Amino acid sequence: RINSARLWDSLMEMAQIGPGIAGGCNRQTLTDADAEGRALFQRWCDAAGLTMGVDAMGTMFATRAGTDPEALPVYVGSHLDTQPTGGKYDGVLGVLGALECIRTMNDLGIRTKHPIVVTNWTNEEGARFAPAMLASGVFAGVHTLDYAYGRTDPEGKTFGAELARIGWVGDEPVGARKMHAYYELHIEQGPILEAEGKQIGVVTHCQGLWWLEFTLTGREAHTGSTPMHLRVNAGLAMARIMEMVQAVAMAALPDAVGGVGQVRFSPNSRNVLPGTVVFTVDIRSPDQAKLDGMRAEIEAKAAALCADLGVGYSVEAVGHFDPVTFAPELVANVRRAAERLGYSHRDIISGAGHDACWAAKVAPATMVMCPCVGGLSHNEAEEISPDWAAAGTDVLLHAVLETAQI
Amino acid sequence: RINSARLWDSLMEMAQIGPGIAGGCNRQTLTDADAEGRALFQRWCDAAGLTMGVDAMGTMFATRAGTDPEALPVYVGSHLDTQPTGGKYDGVLGVLGALECIRTMNDLGIRTKHPIVVTNWTNEEGARFAPAMLASGVFAGVHTLDYAYGRTDPEGKTFGAELARIGWVGDEPVGARKMHAYYELHIEQGPILEAEGKQIGVVTHCQGLWWLEFTLTGREAHTGSTPMHLRVNAGLAMARIMEMVQAVAMAALPDAVGGVGQVRFSPNSRNVLPGTVVFTVDIRSPDQAKLDGMRAEIEAKAAALCADLGVGYSVEAVGHFDPVTFAPELVANVRRAAERLGYSHRDIISGAGHDACWAAKVAPATMVMCPCVGGLSHNEAEEISPDWAAAGTDVLLHAVLETAQI
Ligand SMILES: NC(=O)NCCC(=O)O
Ligand SMILES: NC(=O)NCCC(=O)O
Repeated sequence: RINSARLWDSLMEMAQIGPGIAGGCNRQTLTDADAEGRALFQRWCDAAGLTMGVDAMGTMFATRAGTDPEALPVYVGSHLDTQPTGGKYDGVLGVLGALECIRTMNDLGIRTKHPIVVTNWTNEEGARFAPAMLASGVFAGVHTLDYAYGRTDPEGKTFGAELARIGWVGDEPVGARKMHAYYELHIEQGPILEAEGKQIGVVTHCQGLWWLEFTLTGREAHTGSTPMHLRVNAGLAMARIMEMVQAVAMAALPDAVGGVGQVRFSPNSRNVLPGTVVFTVDIRSPDQAKLDGMRAEIEAKAAALCADLGVGYSVEAVGHFDPVTFAPELVANVRRAAERLGYSHRDIISGAGHDACWAAKVAPATMVMCPCVGGLSHNEAEEISPDWAAAGTDVLLHAVLETAQI
Repeated sequence: RINSARLWDSLMEMAQIGPGIAGGCNRQTLTDADAEGRALFQRWCDAAGLTMGVDAMGTMFATRAGTDPEALPVYVGSHLDTQPTGGKYDGVLGVLGALECIRTMNDLGIRTKHPIVVTNWTNEEGARFAPAMLASGVFAGVHTLDYAYGRTDPEGKTFGAELARIGWVGDEPVGARKMHAYYELHIEQGPILEAEGKQIGVVTHCQGLWWLEFTLTGREAHTGSTPMHLRVNAGLAMARIMEMVQAVAMAALPDAVGGVGQVRFSPNSRNVLPGTVVFTVDIRSPDQAKLDGMRAEIEAKAAALCADLGVGYSVEAVGHFDPVTFAPELVANVRRAAERLGYSHRDIISGAGHDACWAAKVAPATMVMCPCVGGLSHNEAEEISPDWAAAGTDVLLHAVLETAQI
């Protein structure tokens, strides 16, 4: 079993970097706080005897050598970046849990045939630069490096420039590494495990996602002196699309969700009808046909709603991944580990996207989940207990050792 | 008649200060660009032989002496501040048109019994600091100076600090001046005059306004892993309120409008349901009972829509003025001036708020309007013709001379 107190201490120490305003974290990718978090993680890896490699996306790979020089490494990790008002565990538990596995192996003098690589993927959240899981996406060949470097934040700064600014452009070509397997520990970010009193989620699938960024073009005009019938009201069109997305998601229940997190009005002045409204619809389902059907329905209905108001309309998919089925043999390892350790568990579908989804394209991959309080995540109030963290990390350790072979 | 070419040159010269990105202006109140615009206006006033006074709200009063030391001044003006993506004429025509009247009187050696004061009111637009018409509101005793100084912009800077920063805190107590009368020339900002081919709008009334700032409190949560039934979706509540405001305004036609220009999602991340949504509803009507009835209906229905979704709700009136009836004797002066000059005209109700609305509380007041292309305003593409500007300014000159007495 891992050292629960040491794991918790590390989680709390990392949480002090890029502190939030309400107990959580604001350590968005490629900010100064991200650089500080990376430096701390690097010191910990050095102390654990790991060898650090960094690729051109800034992803950090900290390797513990194996006994067989021919054996491909087992990768274990997640991400250290957070949402602007994020929690202390989303992603961080997966990286520091992996590090804790190494520390425990060091304590116990456990050697493995396969090397083990603790991994910190760059820009998992996608909050500052869409899409999410950007570095793992380039690693898996889903995006080109140029595409990733050209992504811009709301201030117009590019991913490439910001990665260089914080000094984390590594020399490894992205995706050059070959993986024997990939494991990721993560908090559930949903309510199921806590509600059912289960300690471990055995993650069999991950639902797919579309981020549909709508750009609606109205006519900037005075809110007072412009008669109702002369308005080209892009804000009203947005409102109707939001309501329609809600209806489409509700009709697709139980295995679907849909909502809007980001909205930008321009010029965003109280007495100006917006000339431009940009907002992103987030729809998800584990069922590929349903997911793509929702997208088609939303786009068709949005076009009709805009036409009705004379509002110009375009849509761009700024994020996407298909539903994922994780590798059955690794899933079985996780389930067996939970049983061996005596932790209650259930199979679960991940509601959020994870780097494991892209890793699954290039290697057998799966995840381990632990509960979080109230299912709350992407909220500074995100919370877990030290026991939940320890149970998840214990299972991660056992599953990884199974694959890496003692 | 005024000097049309000189007026147009001054309008074009002022438009170069705080240039927009699409041919208009971004000279928001109390910015460096505003300070530059003020300095240019001051130089022009000096050259025209006017004496500048500045009050504690930064409003500029440039006086041309009258022949009777006992006679109260006639005030003529508008504002030089603009929307973030504003036009070249909204407000500016009223200030520079007033200055052109003075220049014409100087050219022709016309003296008046009453002094004439060219006025540039601070923060008419209300884009950076709500509410609109802030300085004229303090002047008329509607707001206190403390209230005005404490207003904040989106970055949290206060009006008082920004006024001091640009160096325009004057020594006159606000509202100490007594007015014999107040005239304001303005572009219509609506489509009526152009559509009917009229050169002059004789402004008899101004419709009233409520700015209702809603703060909706949802629960920040992951867009992917939070099931639909567990969402506390403040964005959806906003969408429903927007649709409801549209319905309330449509039901109140013909003499009502309603819409939303400003929206802020927090944290505004694509994969986070918003914890807080703040947006401002702008409703207007020239009919007091209808205006207040719309407000009551919107607030009651919004409360019910939020309750239905479990979303927390508060509303604050961040801007308000009652419908205004302008002084009949001044309105008659304007109508007679248009007739004498041979300009086509019609009576009109102002759809937008103006400093004249507050001035009307402390003195006989009215306005002159000229058409604008397509009724478009609060848009960088706002446009008028030199002939329209000249006709409006001619009428302003004649009406002012009637009141100021040659
Ligand atoms: N786990 C997580 O929150 N990832 C961000 C990508 C997503 O929105 O699912
Ligand atoms: N004239 C003008 O646009 N004033 C701003 C205040 C308002 O929104 O009516």
